[in-house]
Amino acid sequence: MDDERYGWLSKFRSLRGLWRDVAQTIGSSLGVASRLDGDLPPNDAELLREEMRQCLQARGGEMSARGRAAHLGQAYLDLTATGRRNFLRLLAEDFDSDPNEVDQAMREVGAATDRPARLRAERRLKQSLESPRVRLLTQFTTLPDGVKFLVDLRAELVALAKTDPTLAGLADELRALLAGWFDVGFLELQRMTWRSPALLLEKIIAYEAVHAIQGWPDLKNRLDSDRRLYAFFHPRMPDEPLIFIEVALTRGLSDNIQRVLDEQAPVEDAGRADTAIFYSINNAQRGLDGISFGNFLIKKVVDDLSHEFPNLKTFATLSPVPGLRAWAERHGLIGELDSADDLQLTRLTARYLTEISPERGRVRDPVAHFHLSNGARLERINLRADTSARGQLLSAGVMVNYLYKLSDIEANHEAYSGLGRVAMASPIKALLKG
Amino acid sequence: MDDERYGWLSKFRSLRGLWRDVAQTIGSSLGVASRLDGDLPPNDAELLREEMRQCLQARGGEMSARGRAAHLGQAYLDLTATGRRNFLRLLAEDFDSDPNEVDQAMREVGAATDRPARLRAERRLKQSLESPRVRLLTQFTTLPDGVKFLVDLRAELVALAKTDPTLAGLADELRALLAGWFDVGFLELQRMTWRSPALLLEKIIAYEAVHAIQGWPDLKNRLDSDRRLYAFFHPRMPDEPLIFIEVALTRGLSDNIQRVLDEQAPVEDAGRADTAIFYSINNAQRGLDGISFGNFLIKKVVDDLSHEFPNLKTFATLSPVPGLRAWAERHGLIGELDSADDLQLTRLTARYLTEISPERGRVRDPVAHFHLSNGARLERINLRADTSARGQLLSAGVMVNYLYKLSDIEANHEAYSGLGRVAMASPIKALLKG
Amino acid sequence: MDDERYGWLSKFRSLRGLWRDVAQTIGSSLGVASRLDGDLPPNDAELLREEMRQCLQARGGEMSARGRAAHLGQAYLDLTATGRRNFLRLLAEDFDSDPNEVDQAMREVGAATDRPARLRAERRLKQSLESPRVRLLTQFTTLPDGVKFLVDLRAELVALAKTDPTLAGLADELRALLAGWFDVGFLELQRMTWRSPALLLEKIIAYEAVHAIQGWPDLKNRLDSDRRLYAFFHPRMPDEPLIFIEVALTRGLSDNIQRVLDEQAPVEDAGRADTAIFYSINNAQRGLDGISFGNFLIKKVVDDLSHEFPNLKTFATLSPVPGLRAWAERHGLIGELDSADDLQLTRLTARYLTEISPERGRVRDPVAHFHLSNGARLERINLRADTSARGQLLSAGVMVNYLYKLSDIEANHEAYSGLGRVAMASPIKALLKG
Amino acid sequence: MDDERYGWLSKFRSLRGLWRDVAQTIGSSLGVASRLDGDLPPNDAELLREEMRQCLQARGGEMSARGRAAHLGQAYLDLTATGRRNFLRLLAEDFDSDPNEVDQAMREVGAATDRPARLRAERRLKQSLESPRVRLLTQFTTLPDGVKFLVDLRAELVALAKTDPTLAGLADELRALLAGWFDVGFLELQRMTWRSPALLLEKIIAYEAVHAIQGWPDLKNRLDSDRRLYAFFHPRMPDEPLIFIEVALTRGLSDNIQRVLDEQAPVEDAGRADTAIFYSINNAQRGLDGISFGNFLIKKVVDDLSHEFPNLKTFATLSPVPGLRAWAERHGLIGELDSADDLQLTRLTARYLTEISPERGRVRDPVAHFHLSNGARLERINLRADTSARGQLLSAGVMVNYLYKLSDIEANHEAYSGLGRVAMASPIKALLKG
Repeated sequence: MDDERYGWLSKFRSLRGLWRDVAQTIGSSLGVASRLDGDLPPNDAELLREEMRQCLQARGGEMSARGRAAHLGQAYLDLTATGRRNFLRLLAEDFDSDPNEVDQAMREVGAATDRPARLRAERRLKQSLESPRVRLLTQFTTLPDGVKFLVDLRAELVALAKTDPTLAGLADELRALLAGWFDVGFLELQRMTWRSPALLLEKIIAYEAVHAIQGWPDLKNRLDSDRRLYAFFHPRMPDEPLIFIEVALTRGLSDNIQRVLDEQAPVEDAGRADTAIFYSINNAQRGLDGISFGNFLIKKVVDDLSHEFPNLKTFATLSPVPGLRAWAERHGLIGELDSADDLQLTRLTARYLTEISPERGRVRDPVAHFHLSNGARLERINLRADTSARGQLLSAGVMVNYLYKLSDIEANHEAYSGLGRVAMASPIKALLKG
Repeated sequence: MDDERYGWLSKFRSLRGLWRDVAQTIGSSLGVASRLDGDLPPNDAELLREEMRQCLQARGGEMSARGRAAHLGQAYLDLTATGRRNFLRLLAEDFDSDPNEVDQAMREVGAATDRPARLRAERRLKQSLESPRVRLLTQFTTLPDGVKFLVDLRAELVALAKTDPTLAGLADELRALLAGWFDVGFLELQRMTWRSPALLLEKIIAYEAVHAIQGWPDLKNRLDSDRRLYAFFHPRMPDEPLIFIEVALTRGLSDNIQRVLDEQAPVEDAGRADTAIFYSINNAQRGLDGISFGNFLIKKVVDDLSHEFPNLKTFATLSPVPGLRAWAERHGLIGELDSADDLQLTRLTARYLTEISPERGRVRDPVAHFHLSNGARLERINLRADTSARGQLLSAGVMVNYLYKLSDIEANHEAYSGLGRVAMASPIKALLKG
Repeated sequence: MDDERYGWLSKFRSLRGLWRDVAQTIGSSLGVASRLDGDLPPNDAELLREEMRQCLQARGGEMSARGRAAHLGQAYLDLTATGRRNFLRLLAEDFDSDPNEVDQAMREVGAATDRPARLRAERRLKQSLESPRVRLLTQFTTLPDGVKFLVDLRAELVALAKTDPTLAGLADELRALLAGWFDVGFLELQRMTWRSPALLLEKIIAYEAVHAIQGWPDLKNRLDSDRRLYAFFHPRMPDEPLIFIEVALTRGLSDNIQRVLDEQAPVEDAGRADTAIFYSINNAQRGLDGISFGNFLIKKVVDDLSHEFPNLKTFATLSPVPGLRAWAERHGLIGELDSADDLQLTRLTARYLTEISPERGRVRDPVAHFHLSNGARLERINLRADTSARGQLLSAGVMVNYLYKLSDIEANHEAYSGLGRVAMASPIKALLKG
Repeated sequence: MDDERYGWLSKFRSLRGLWRDVAQTIGSSLGVASRLDGDLPPNDAELLREEMRQCLQARGGEMSARGRAAHLGQAYLDLTATGRRNFLRLLAEDFDSDPNEVDQAMREVGAATDRPARLRAERRLKQSLESPRVRLLTQFTTLPDGVKFLVDLRAELVALAKTDPTLAGLADELRALLAGWFDVGFLELQRMTWRSPALLLEKIIAYEAVHAIQGWPDLKNRLDSDRRLYAFFHPRMPDEPLIFIEVALTRGLSDNIQRVLDEQAPVEDAGRADTAIFYSINNAQRGLDGISFGNFLIKKVVDDLSHEFPNLKTFATLSPVPGLRAWAERHGLIGELDSADDLQLTRLTARYLTEISPERGRVRDPVAHFHLSNGARLERINLRADTSARGQLLSAGVMVNYLYKLSDIEANHEAYSGLGRVAMASPIKALLKG
């Protein structure tokens, strides 16, 4: 089901054909992959190892190496789940850096007697630590959809690495590789509208996980003149949003998500809005987990909106409190939670959102942690704000506004990240003291 | 003069203003840079060091760090040549990796008793070798023209590093950083035409170094319907060609560059051409020296042209022989060269182009080495092919066709790179034996 | 309901606001329109007449005239159905050409004694026949969506003119005006794909009237790699398809529309198709009724497809026979129709499709007439080809292939248009003789 | 020379090949044109007449008619100057409306006894006056560059019609046809920058006739950040500017054109400018003479600039006074002009610019008439404002500022167009009284 959500298998089925063409165009002598057993038993793994080796040696030139890479990618896509694990293990184990070379390079560093010699030795040491497997993966960039292939590959790899420590190093290196490519400086902010390609809008529908989109009319409503939807894209993955954020232009802070999403509600005059409410933010690529864009996205969008609507005074979220009930359960407060009156529920939520966990040195709620790290302030706690079954289940219907005030962001961030101090509006402060 | 050619100083002068705005937009507390003395004496260097430190610590959040980077970039641009050298030294020396950390990490690798422990220790060792200065440079990606800034910075750095070994490590790391970003998989092939932006065509005129473009009419002639000009671009440097290649569509192999460039010559019917002559290939960014695209560019262009003109049968270059006279001089053959008859001159050239230098394990002529490495074949030696003063001076007017035959490229490459065997047409082979 | 289908009212509601802004920007002294009663009683009509007069005189310059036009358009949109009829009558009657001027000009033509004098007089006569109301309508072109306004206005006008002869002349002139603007030479052929703006795809769904589109998945299926959908657009109405055609790439002639539309059917390899089936063609703008593009659209698409898929050998339609049952009823053949065996039904259909009606000098079926006029040939009659309720009702499930063979189109067209001879495949000819 | 300036012949030479392809693609039976003698003697004219007739009858369908049109166009392009005149005469004389039909239609109008009958008869009369030759010309719209062909054809036609009255009617009709297509509502305003296609910029250089552009550096200077250049384009002639205007953003009114054009002058900060100076406006298509866009262009540009630069307070021209010396000569004031002191010269210029010519009912200077008709005001007379030889020759170095003040434009226009009253600044008024 997850696979389906990410279009993983279906996409790959068509990639397979595409890459077969690429491989055939470029190289003539390649043919191993098509004869592999889907589970990749040892003998077949041996064939694959040889092809990987040739790809790395760039036999026949760099262009041929890219042809071989297409071939290897195609082989990967044809494998079963078992076969893919074997493929990844092969890559991880047989194409890691060479311990003997590393040892030798470390000895040279140790033996260096002056600074220039030390620097030269360190450079060699660094090279010895660069694994061939990463060079192999880099070859995929020239293939059509090759970057998306690697992103999706990482999603699979990370899942497998949880139970298979031999894959951890490779997962780590792939993360570093992707983090370099997906540096926020290389991303493009695009506004999605009803004029955007259906191809992209279809993915927005599929990827929205915070407040599911019920279909095209629901999406159209979220793109109306009093709404905005922005996404980050990478130039080499132009058909795939990386992360996106949904905004409602309102008068005053929103305190109820159903009202925000109501398709029947009249369209507001955006020019007269004084507040921008960020009501949903979604990471769309599981393969980029742990590479963070959200902070930049919010600030770029604040900047963009400020220019388009000079009347906007307030930038804030309407955010879920996903961990509230689970936390109450863990701390034996669940009875208290379910029987709480409004004041008690507000106070309980405030406590949950602002207490620093001694083990992790941060607040417990992941959404709160994200916004507080970004320099936002806990502004208001709204009861009966999410009346959906899910909202009731996870957080007793409570939602929260986090406020992004440009002039305070730096100080808030420093206070939270450096000192563990949570920025919050004075009523909440008072409530916690009371 | 070189600076001018690359638009270095003038570009930077306008960047300075742009970045000042960026720095002001993002952060309020920055202001050190504007008070620095242009030569960056020690006291001022201390101020800068502090700012670099804060940028690396991301005080105030990642967004502020980018603001500080803009500030540092602006500071750099305001410095004199002396100031810039001091800036780069400061960066190279004070923000290198920490030797104590490296030593400690090496000890841990040595102490590891099983494979998982070893892998963990190697990962820490690798991290300890990653210098803060590279993280600092990466911050520039989000700035307008930040990538171009780094490319040009590398051009300066490489020049300085030749006489200043303390800069070698930084130069090396910047090269690796750029090599990752400018992987050929991230580049876009664009055909330049008379419909292209004047802004880009102006740069083609400025950057063409093999056969200088005499002005706009000369350029227009090179973009006519029987010509092609392709360039590689990076998505984050859309106004800067990285490398470009010029092609003439002809009947048969061209043997004279003046005829190719003649603006008065009638335009040929490209649909009836059987040969594509690559008559000029230029690397446009000195800051990307050593990061190679030429091989891919030629092959992509061959591919593109094959689709557009199914009648094309032959893909070849009309190339200079830049080192011929210098080689003849070094080997006491200069008298022979100047008095040679046609046969002797052809044979001398053939010898020069095909002999493997024992010291370097490759042919001596850099152009020949480039094409032979790509898998091309030495096809024909043309006398009186470049009658310009420069052509006479460097190579006695000789030019050469290298042939790109797709089916032989892999084998040719392997033979040359692996065994030092030069692919050549049989008449040349016969000549050398004779 | 029709209004809704064409987005008429809702679109106009937003236009109203837009044009109010335009009117205010351009002119200051305009204000009549906002005080009109919705039904436009005589007194208000008088106010409007004065404004129209000033608009025509271009008081304050041409730019002001355009501002007044915006004002008049806004007034029109604010009126009720009664008010709009009054508006149009006012325009038709009070701003027609002046009979006295026409009479005077005719006298001058009659009095001309030599050819130059006659030519001069004819030019004045022509001018006297040009009505001010058309000049007024032309003013709308500069307004945002002004052309679409006029197209939709004509739809209303034509409907009213059926029962109101005073509007016939205006309707006629508006037709001529639009026919000039929408000359096929000014239109752009666009292929619609899943990458097209959702805004446009939504209109394709709304406007498809031959085989209704059931929703976005149905549309996506019709845009798959073995399908094509092309539309004509006008540069000044970029958000509105004028006419569109849907194509399936198949092997052999399709004989069943349900199979063509089946979303579960596997996607074919378009490169191996030998036949392009045009299975739906829709005029999207009622206001352009009687201005014909279909002929050009089909031929441009044939041209486009021939280049993209050199393997295509056959271009044909899969067309409904919408008038079959009605014709059978009118001619007392309905009993025969309902009890017919396959052969009889085929023969009856062939007769219906090929007999020239003596009154109209053409075949009776409108779809047949359209394709035969275009030079197509009646190729095959398919029974049980449309099993939908509508297909059964209108044509007993029969559908037809018309064949577009480029080399025969001219001759077929001449034979049909000039001589009333219907081109048909020999089996059908044989059947009719039998 | 004029031909060269408008690219007329060279463009047509390539069109010829293009249209030959079109003609061949569409129709098979066409072949007359290629055998015509260049001067088009009577026998050949007869062949052409037959082809025109068939084109009008749309033998073989509308698509074939367009093929024939391509053929006719190609024939025209192959003719000599003599042949073209014969071609145009043939078209004008043999394909004019039919006098007998006109007479018959006039009789029917006369005989009509009630209003509906009269209206029907008038419609037929109008149709009888529509000449076949215009329908023929309309066919060219679908051809590549067909609209440009007609525009250039009109330039030739107008020149010939001056001495050949038989061409006047055709010239008139072509004007009306083009005026409909080139209605300002169908035009697109584009800003030209250094990023614009070289193809378009080259034409700007060629078409600038007020202050000739000296080459690419001069053009680049006119596109700098403190300058603007806007042009109108038609969607079917995207490679041809119709009219363009050049603007300098300054502080205060400019009083000297050489300073405006000085490439060495420092670039101003456009954001701080308070004045926009329109210093050159050029009609680029001779074939569109008499179809006016300038008024709309200026007002659209004022609108555009007001949004981009809210600090702009004044919009004015720096205009030549092209008829000053000629007027002085005609009125025996030339001695006075050449010996005038500053005050006298200013007063003489003021008189020339503001006196209404009794014969023509307008001021004599064409530039003054253009701006005054647009509603501008004569603001200031600048001596020694154009020190070029041409400026001295035509207007003794005098230039003028016309002021465009939005709130006065309507009243100024009305006063000038209606009453012959010239709007001017009070110092000029005082001067004229003095």
